[in-house]
Amino acid sequence: MQKIKVGVLGATGSVGQRFIQLLENHPFFTVSHLAASEKSAGQTYGQVMKSRWKISSDIPAYAKDIVITLPKPSETDGVKLVFSGLDSSIAGEVESEYAQAGVIVISNSKNHRMDANVPILSAEVNAEHLDVLSAQNTKGKIITNSNCTIMGVTISLKPLFDQFGLESVMLFSMQAISGAGYPGVPSMDILGNVVPYISGEEEKAEIEPQKCLGRVVDGKIVSADFKISAHCNRVPVFDGHTVCVSAKFKKKPNREEILKAWKEFSGEPQKLQLPFAPEQTILYREEADRPQPRLDLDTGKGMTTVVGRLREDSLLDWKWVVLSHNTIRGAAGAALLNAELMYKKGLIS
Amino acid sequence: MQKIKVGVLGATGSVGQRFIQLLENHPFFTVSHLAASEKSAGQTYGQVMKSRWKISSDIPAYAKDIVITLPKPSETDGVKLVFSGLDSSIAGEVESEYAQAGVIVISNSKNHRMDANVPILSAEVNAEHLDVLSAQNTKGKIITNSNCTIMGVTISLKPLFDQFGLESVMLFSMQAISGAGYPGVPSMDILGNVVPYISGEEEKAEIEPQKCLGRVVDGKIVSADFKISAHCNRVPVFDGHTVCVSAKFKKKPNREEILKAWKEFSGEPQKLQLPFAPEQTILYREEADRPQPRLDLDTGKGMTTVVGRLREDSLLDWKWVVLSHNTIRGAAGAALLNAELMYKKGLIS
Amino acid sequence: MQKIKVGVLGATGSVGQRFIQLLENHPFFTVSHLAASEKSAGQTYGQVMKSRWKISSDIPAYAKDIVITLPKPSETDGVKLVFSGLDSSIAGEVESEYAQAGVIVISNSKNHRMDANVPILSAEVNAEHLDVLSAQNTKGKIITNSNCTIMGVTISLKPLFDQFGLESVMLFSMQAISGAGYPGVPSMDILGNVVPYISGEEEKAEIEPQKCLGRVVDGKIVSADFKISAHCNRVPVFDGHTVCVSAKFKKKPNREEILKAWKEFSGEPQKLQLPFAPEQTILYREEADRPQPRLDLDTGKGMTTVVGRLREDSLLDWKWVVLSHNTIRGAAGAALLNAELMYKKGLIS
Amino acid sequence: MQKIKVGVLGATGSVGQRFIQLLENHPFFTVSHLAASEKSAGQTYGQVMKSRWKISSDIPAYAKDIVITLPKPSETDGVKLVFSGLDSSIAGEVESEYAQAGVIVISNSKNHRMDANVPILSAEVNAEHLDVLSAQNTKGKIITNSNCTIMGVTISLKPLFDQFGLESVMLFSMQAISGAGYPGVPSMDILGNVVPYISGEEEKAEIEPQKCLGRVVDGKIVSADFKISAHCNRVPVFDGHTVCVSAKFKKKPNREEILKAWKEFSGEPQKLQLPFAPEQTILYREEADRPQPRLDLDTGKGMTTVVGRLREDSLLDWKWVVLSHNTIRGAAGAALLNAELMYKKGLIS
Repeated sequence: MQKIKVGVLGATGSVGQRFIQLLENHPFFTVSHLAASEKSAGQTYGQVMKSRWKISSDIPAYAKDIVITLPKPSETDGVKLVFSGLDSSIAGEVESEYAQAGVIVISNSKNHRMDANVPILSAEVNAEHLDVLSAQNTKGKIITNSNCTIMGVTISLKPLFDQFGLESVMLFSMQAISGAGYPGVPSMDILGNVVPYISGEEEKAEIEPQKCLGRVVDGKIVSADFKISAHCNRVPVFDGHTVCVSAKFKKKPNREEILKAWKEFSGEPQKLQLPFAPEQTILYREEADRPQPRLDLDTGKGMTTVVGRLREDSLLDWKWVVLSHNTIRGAAGAALLNAELMYKKGLIS
Repeated sequence: MQKIKVGVLGATGSVGQRFIQLLENHPFFTVSHLAASEKSAGQTYGQVMKSRWKISSDIPAYAKDIVITLPKPSETDGVKLVFSGLDSSIAGEVESEYAQAGVIVISNSKNHRMDANVPILSAEVNAEHLDVLSAQNTKGKIITNSNCTIMGVTISLKPLFDQFGLESVMLFSMQAISGAGYPGVPSMDILGNVVPYISGEEEKAEIEPQKCLGRVVDGKIVSADFKISAHCNRVPVFDGHTVCVSAKFKKKPNREEILKAWKEFSGEPQKLQLPFAPEQTILYREEADRPQPRLDLDTGKGMTTVVGRLREDSLLDWKWVVLSHNTIRGAAGAALLNAELMYKKGLIS
Repeated sequence: MQKIKVGVLGATGSVGQRFIQLLENHPFFTVSHLAASEKSAGQTYGQVMKSRWKISSDIPAYAKDIVITLPKPSETDGVKLVFSGLDSSIAGEVESEYAQAGVIVISNSKNHRMDANVPILSAEVNAEHLDVLSAQNTKGKIITNSNCTIMGVTISLKPLFDQFGLESVMLFSMQAISGAGYPGVPSMDILGNVVPYISGEEEKAEIEPQKCLGRVVDGKIVSADFKISAHCNRVPVFDGHTVCVSAKFKKKPNREEILKAWKEFSGEPQKLQLPFAPEQTILYREEADRPQPRLDLDTGKGMTTVVGRLREDSLLDWKWVVLSHNTIRGAAGAALLNAELMYKKGLIS
Repeated sequence: MQKIKVGVLGATGSVGQRFIQLLENHPFFTVSHLAASEKSAGQTYGQVMKSRWKISSDIPAYAKDIVITLPKPSETDGVKLVFSGLDSSIAGEVESEYAQAGVIVISNSKNHRMDANVPILSAEVNAEHLDVLSAQNTKGKIITNSNCTIMGVTISLKPLFDQFGLESVMLFSMQAISGAGYPGVPSMDILGNVVPYISGEEEKAEIEPQKCLGRVVDGKIVSADFKISAHCNRVPVFDGHTVCVSAKFKKKPNREEILKAWKEFSGEPQKLQLPFAPEQTILYREEADRPQPRLDLDTGKGMTTVVGRLREDSLLDWKWVVLSHNTIRGAAGAALLNAELMYKKGLIS
C-alpha cells in the first residue's frame, strides 16, 4: 500500500511540532512538505529546530532533512493533504489557497471553523458532518478541529446530548500554558499565579460546541440550540486543560444512566480501528480527586477524555470535571484522527 | 487607654502565625496567651517556631518569649478574647470551653459556623448579626468567619443582593495552597498540576453565604434563600483565592448599577474607622485580565476584595471574577476586623 | 525459562511504586511478595493504593490482587530476591533479616551502603564489586544503589576517572521533589522557591562516589582517594536531578578526549544486553542550554545520563552539567539493572 | 531643601518599573523625565503601562501623567541625573550621550561596567571608587551596578576579603525569572524545570567581583586578583537569586571570625544614614535551611544580603549560601543607594 504524501503548515510552531512527532511512522501518511515563515524557509527542519524543538523526545529523523518552504501550494511536492498549525493571523488565507489548489486542509486554526460547510470535526462525535464537504466550492476541502478547551467537553457531552437532550451548560476552564504556543505565556505572568482571562477563548467556547453537536439537515450543519456560558482561565500547568462543567438536560438522567452513556460511547474511529483512536474515548475515574493533569493526561496516549467527580448540581442538573490533553486530543492528535477518518472513508485520493 | 488582653489558640499553625503577625502593635489588643498542642506546650513561642514560622517576616518580638500552654481556659492569664485558628478536629469542643469560661471566641474554624445564634460575621456585610449573641447561653460568646473561599464572594454579592435580590449563584474557585495549612498539600500533588477537589469545601461554599447574607428576625439569623452551586479546585498559587462567579438576580441590574454598587459599598468598619478596615472594601479593576493573585493580592493590605471582568452571562445574568487574600481577608484579618468591631461596639469588657 | 520470584519491600512508597511499575512484564522476574507497614498489611495492593498511586499510568494489573504483608522473610512465598524501597528508619534491620533468611536484597536505602563488603553497585561503573559479596557472612546478600543525586554524577566521572585520574570534584545539585518521597516536601516550602538544604544529602554525596569508583583489592572495596565538596539544593522540579560539576584531574584531558570517553563508555549491562540497559549510557548534548529536566529526562527511558555544557573551569580543570532521572536511573531502574546483572552472572539461584 | 530632578531611561521595562516604584516620595530626588522607545514616546506613562505594569502595587500617581520621551538628553527637562534600566543593545551609546550632555548616569546595564574609570559601585563595598570619576572625560559621569547575581555575593565576600584575603571562589547560582525582564523567560521553558544556562552570565560573574573588590591606585581601579568559577542556572522562582559559594582564603579564618566579620560589616550608606541603606547589610541566619527566597527576600526591604549555611568546604576553605533580591539590591535599589551616596557626598550639583 502506498502512503499518502502530506504536509505540515506552521511546522515550526507548537502544534506543528506535535504533528511532526505524531506522524512519525504513520501507517497511512508520509510527510514530504514542511512550511513555515520566511525566517525558516530554505533551511532544513533539523537546522531550524535545533534550539526550538520543545517536545521531550528528539526531532524525528525523517523530518530533519526536509527543507522548509513558504506555505504556498506551489511549493508542495504534490501532497494531497496538509495539517495546518498556522497562526490565525495568516491561517485563513493560506488554508483557502491550499484548498483552491486541490489540497485537503486539516486545520487546527480558528479561522474557518464557523464557515458554512466547514465542519468542526471530532471524529467520534460528528463523523457525519463530512457529508457537507461537497458543498465547499473548492477542489480541496477544509476541515477544522474545535478549540482545544472544548474538545474534551464536547466529547463528554455528546452521548448525554444524544440520549437526554441539553438545555444549558456552564463551563469553567483551567488551561495549560502550552495552549498559548511558544514563547506564549511569559513566566512572570503565570508562575505561582492564575490569569482569569484568555483572549477570544470564551467566545469560541460559547459557540463551537453547538456546531460540533449539530445535525446535518439538507446538506448543511445546523447547530444544536442549547446555551453555554464559559469562564476561561490560564493556570501554571504545562499540558492538559481541566474543565469544570455544570449542565441542565431536557430530561434529567440519573447517575447510572450518565456513567453508562460515557462508558459505552464510541464512534467511527473505534469501528474503523483508526490508528489514533483511543480504545476508550471517555474514561470515568471513581476517585474523589480526579482527573488531574499530572496523573491522567496520558490516558489512551493523550487521546482519551478523562472524566470524574460526577455529582448533582443544585442549580442545573449535574456537574463533573473533564480533562483532555490540549496538544494531542485538543489539537494535533484530533486532527490526525480526522485525517485517518477521511482516509478510511475514501475521501482522500 | 488600657489594651485588652487576648490570646491565640492554635498559635503554631498557619492561621495562628498570621494572627500573631497581624496583632503586633495592635492599638486595642495585647497578646498574653498562646495555646497549642502538647508537642509545643511548655516551651516559648520563639523556641518552637524557629524552624516552623512560614511568613516572610520575622516572628514578632513580643511573641517570642510567651510560653505556650495547652488550649485550656484555666491556662489563660485573664484574657477576655481569643482568636482561634484551631484545627477543626478539636476546635468545636475547645471553643465551647472558652465560651463557657466567659471568654469571647473569634473563630476561624468551621465547627460552630452553622450553629443557631452563632454569626458568620463579615464586618462590612452583616454587623447586625452581632445582635444574636445574647441568645448564646454562655458567658463568653462565639463568633465565626466564613470559609476563606466564599469570604470575598460574599462581599462582592452583598451590595448586589441588597439592591437587586439574588436568585442563584454559580461559583468556581481556584484556591491557594496556603488554604490547606502546613504541611498541607504535598508538592508532588500540586506542582504543575491542578486538583479539582477540596474535601468539604463545596459543601461549605453552598450554605455559608446564605447565612452570611441572612437577616436577623426575632433575634435569630434567617438565611437568605438563593441557591449556590460550587466547583472548588486547588491550584499552584501560594496565597490568594480566585473565584469565577455567575449570578442571577431577582431584578437584573445594568453594568453601571453593579459597578456603582461595588464602588460605594462600605460598612461599619469604615464608619468606625477600625484599624484593619480597608479604605475600599471592593475595588473593581478595569483591565481585561485582572484580578490576579500576583498583582492584586496585597490591595488594601490584603483586606480589599478585588473584582474584575464583569460581563453578561448567557445563562444567568452577570459574571465576574473575585480575588481575596485567603489568609488575611479570608481568615486572620477578617477575624481581627470582627474583634475590632466588637470592641468599638462595646461588646468586649 | 522460569522467572525468578521476587518481592518489593516498602511497596506503597514512591520508590516501591516505581519498582512495581518497572517490573511489569519483566523477562527475568515475577513479583509475588509485596511488603509494607501495618497500616497496609492484610489488604490487596489495589485497595491500598487506589488513592495513593502517584505515577501517571495505572497500577499494573498484576499487582492489584497481591495481598500486602509485613516486611518479614517468613511472609515471603519463597522469593529469592527483594527490591527494597524501605524508609531508612527501618531499612537497616529489615534488610539484614532478609539477607539472613537467604534472600538477596537489592536496596535503595542508605543504611548498608557504607558497610564493608556491601557494594554501592552501579552496573556500568563497578560490576566487579560483586566479587566482594562472598565476604558477606549471610546466606542472602545485600547490594545497594548510590544516593540518587550522585548516581548520574558518578557515571559521568567513571570514564574520566579511569583515563585521566581524579583529584577533586565540586558538586552543586538542583534536586527534584520526588527525591523526598510522598508526602515529602510540603508545597508551601517549595512552590516558587528553592531550599538550599537537604538533610544528610551532602554527607552522602561526599563519600559515596569514592566507594562507587573504588577498586576491589584482596576481596575488599577500597574507595578512590579524590575529594568532593557538595552543595545540595531542592528546586520545584517534579522528577530529575540536575548537577553542576567542576573537576580537577590528575592529568588534564582536552575537550575531545572527554567527549570521546563519554561517547564510548559502556559496561556489562550493554555487553550482556540487559533489559534495562540504556543503549547509550552517557549522552552528551551540544545545545548551549541542555540538559534540562523538561526535555531530557526520558532519554533512554530514564536510564541514560545526559551531560552538557562542557567548558573549562578557571579554578579546577573542566566543568559540565549532569541530569539523571532520580527515581529511575537514580533509584528503581538502577536497582533493577543491578538485579538483572546478578541474574545474568548466575548470582541468583 | 529643593529636590534634584532626575529621569529614568528604559522606564517601561522591568528595572525601569522598579525605579519608578522606589523613587516615589524620595527625599532627595523627584522624577521629571521618563524615556523609552518609539512605541511609547509621546504617550503618558499611565496610558502606556496600564496593562504592562508588573509590580504588585499600583503605578505611583506621580508617574502617571509624565509624557514619555525618547532617550535623548535634549528631551530632558534639565535633569541632573538619570537612572538607566536600558536594554544592553542600546544602553552603551545612549548612556554615553547623556554623560556627554552633562548628566550623571546611574546605570544598571552591563555596557560600561568594565570601562576604565567607570566604577562598578556597591555603596557599602567600594564607595572610594567614586574617586575615579574625575578621570571620565565627560561633563556627566557614568556609574554602574554589578550584575544582579554577584551583587550579594560580592557583599558577602567584602569583609572576608578585607580581613583574610581571597584566593579563589566557586559560585553556583539559582536565578529568578525576573532577572530576565519581561516578557523574558517563556513559561514553557521554566515551569517545573531548571535551565542550566544564562547567556553571558557566567562571563560577567567571573570578572565583575574582582573589579568591585579592587583598590584605587593612582586614580585608577585595580581589580583584585583572585579567581572565580561560576555555574549560572535559571530556576522557577519569581524574585531572588540564591547563590552557593565556596571560597579559599589567603589566611583561613575560623567560623567565629567569619560570622563576626559579616555581623559588623557596614559602610558609607549606614554612616551617612542614606534613605535606602539597610540597617543590617549582611544578615546571617542560623537555621539549617536558610536563606530561602520565599522567607528571606524582603529582609531590610530587599536591601539586606541574607547569608546562611556556613560550613567547612572539603576542597576550598568555607562554603555558604547567599540570597539577594535581584531587582532591588541587585538592580534598582542598589542604583538608588549609589545615587544617594553621590548626593550626600556632594557629587550631584
